[in-house]
Amino acid sequence: MKLPTDPIENLATLIRCPSVTPAEGGALTALQAMLAPMGFASDRPVFSEDGTPDVENLYARLSGNGPHLMFAGHTDVVPVGDEAEWTHPPFSAAIANGQMYGRGTVDMKGGIACFVAAVARHIEKNGKLKGSVSLVITGDEEGPSINGTDKLLKWAVDRGETWDAAIVGEPSNPDAIGDMIKIGRRGSISGTITIHGVQGHSAYPHLADNPLRSLVSLLDALLVPPLDAGTRDFQPSNLEPTTIDVGNPTVNVTPSKATASFNIRFNDTWTAESLQAEIHNRLDRAARRTKYRKGRKEPVSFDVVWRDRPSHVFLTRDDRLVNTLTKSVESVVGRRPALSTSGGTSDARFIKDYCPVVEFGLVGKTMHMVDERVDIADLETLTQIYERFLVDWFG
Amino acid sequence: MKLPTDPIENLATLIRCPSVTPAEGGALTALQAMLAPMGFASDRPVFSEDGTPDVENLYARLSGNGPHLMFAGHTDVVPVGDEAEWTHPPFSAAIANGQMYGRGTVDMKGGIACFVAAVARHIEKNGKLKGSVSLVITGDEEGPSINGTDKLLKWAVDRGETWDAAIVGEPSNPDAIGDMIKIGRRGSISGTITIHGVQGHSAYPHLADNPLRSLVSLLDALLVPPLDAGTRDFQPSNLEPTTIDVGNPTVNVTPSKATASFNIRFNDTWTAESLQAEIHNRLDRAARRTKYRKGRKEPVSFDVVWRDRPSHVFLTRDDRLVNTLTKSVESVVGRRPALSTSGGTSDARFIKDYCPVVEFGLVGKTMHMVDERVDIADLETLTQIYERFLVDWFG
Ligand SMILES: [Zn+2]
Ligand SMILES: [Zn+2]
Repeated sequence: MKLPTDPIENLATLIRCPSVTPAEGGALTALQAMLAPMGFASDRPVFSEDGTPDVENLYARLSGNGPHLMFAGHTDVVPVGDEAEWTHPPFSAAIANGQMYGRGTVDMKGGIACFVAAVARHIEKNGKLKGSVSLVITGDEEGPSINGTDKLLKWAVDRGETWDAAIVGEPSNPDAIGDMIKIGRRGSISGTITIHGVQGHSAYPHLADNPLRSLVSLLDALLVPPLDAGTRDFQPSNLEPTTIDVGNPTVNVTPSKATASFNIRFNDTWTAESLQAEIHNRLDRAARRTKYRKGRKEPVSFDVVWRDRPSHVFLTRDDRLVNTLTKSVESVVGRRPALSTSGGTSDARFIKDYCPVVEFGLVGKTMHMVDERVDIADLETLTQIYERFLVDWFG
Repeated sequence: MKLPTDPIENLATLIRCPSVTPAEGGALTALQAMLAPMGFASDRPVFSEDGTPDVENLYARLSGNGPHLMFAGHTDVVPVGDEAEWTHPPFSAAIANGQMYGRGTVDMKGGIACFVAAVARHIEKNGKLKGSVSLVITGDEEGPSINGTDKLLKWAVDRGETWDAAIVGEPSNPDAIGDMIKIGRRGSISGTITIHGVQGHSAYPHLADNPLRSLVSLLDALLVPPLDAGTRDFQPSNLEPTTIDVGNPTVNVTPSKATASFNIRFNDTWTAESLQAEIHNRLDRAARRTKYRKGRKEPVSFDVVWRDRPSHVFLTRDDRLVNTLTKSVESVVGRRPALSTSGGTSDARFIKDYCPVVEFGLVGKTMHMVDERVDIADLETLTQIYERFLVDWFG
């Protein structure tokens, strides 16, 4: 029986499934069919939650005698945008000038295609693995991420699963394969400040309490001084105001209320909780300072609402996982990847609670763009890296 | 023939005309009828402009041999709000506990009623005036003020009119008759700043240019340091931000654009033009400072749009007008009024271009409120002050 050893063929099969989030689009079924000849046992749990679409997921396990490696990823893709702008149709897997075009080629059907090929080659050469491999694949990474990896891991743990290490196949390389392994991620919290004042006439500011004056002071206190200078493993934490809204059309009237929202990406100086406390402290201090301005009797009145779930910061300190992958990369591409904690959140934030996790995949440059595409040569390189890792990590 | 010597009766007649701006409501016709027996010659020009309602006005002149005094005001009133909340119907002129209730009792049909009574008493006692008196009364002071005093003055000037001094009968007293003569007004300008940035992802701020960061710096530069410390005659100039709007609902995205509007009430440190230049300077300097932060290559890009017409600052330095009115007030109420330049704009801003102008009228406490009302005793006091002024000023 022919095993799926060719990452180009694997990827073309997956690209032809139009799995725009949250649609399954045939992608998980195609993947399941690729894995079956190697002996993977698959489950296809569907998760639901009020207010979000139902999502299909895949848990595929190849059991052996030894440690348990998780490979995690997603088959859902972001929308194609204006299809007319694509040089080749986004679900055609057309190859031109050494590139395969298609939505999801790098983010991240390509990573899955390479990992499947790596396992297939390993089995073809060695007969079997010296341990277990599970693919944890969701259809809800580009969506709200509620009915995806988070629930799929809990579902597996409920069935007794444990893992020794995980690789997430997201496109971790900025420019070329081998640039970067991601070994952690900053956390993320978002909040909305509402400042309460007293409406008034612009000509009589002493009879009013203009919340926009206080807003400028409070936002300034959030921006200066910087939250930290960065840590050994992380870039500095950063706060970005994302919106300010008042909606007062009248130039002679000052408003009664103003709201400002912000997002913070934070490093291991903080926990979500300690950072929320710092934000409250800064706002309280700035509010008290307003008391001594303009003859206020009371500090400005405000409240903060924290939005969504915080995404916690993490750093993978597992030397065996990180060093083995680093050496696998080095042996194939001849240079040492950077170990980075930069960038946005990924599903690794859920996996980190169960086992050490890193991210390594293709080159992310064209992800989410029109004409998303992958260098055909990169597919072979990544497959070789993953294959080498299987040999070295199972040892 | 009975002359309109009773301010209470005069005011009740005017209050019963529901002249909610821009409706004439019979008020100008009633006023014209009051003035006719004293020999006033009246014109009723109606002014129009695209996009604004037509407005009726009254120019009434009693000609004598000597200087020419203008009394200016308006018979239009602001809407009544929730009529059910009024203790007495707003157009009933009901009297209870020594107060007359009604929309316009203090702002400012009351001032007109008292001035008419003062002229009537003067004529009854002296037969005639030692000069000329003109009433310049508009129905568009509470509206856009486009088809009112501004055009009525130009209309009169075109007919050869000149004036030696003017009293505007707006409620100038904060608490009690005799508190305050207004001898000038701050100017007013309004603008909207738009800051242009580059949209981006909250996790990659270095790839974006968040206009809200720049907005905080630019607004802070407008607020600090203060524009001035005030002048001999004026309180400090003051800038109030009136709105900030972005409308970005997405917490992971930083916006491409932000707008902030502001209004400035300014004193005679500035002209509208020099102040606009100062605002541009402050914004330019703050924008250049942003260049040295966060590795920007260019200063933040912004533009300012000035809204509406500027309202220019003025101060009445005519000793004869100010001193005579001060003494008239002192002789009736036994205390010296403050000479003030505080508060919002009024139609005096138009009159100041033709002759010295002051504002003196009733107590403004209930203006624009439900249950607007005037102390009956105040009507008699104000009538006596105006009568005394006629004697002293015509001299
Ligand atoms: Zn992805
Ligand atoms: Zn008024």
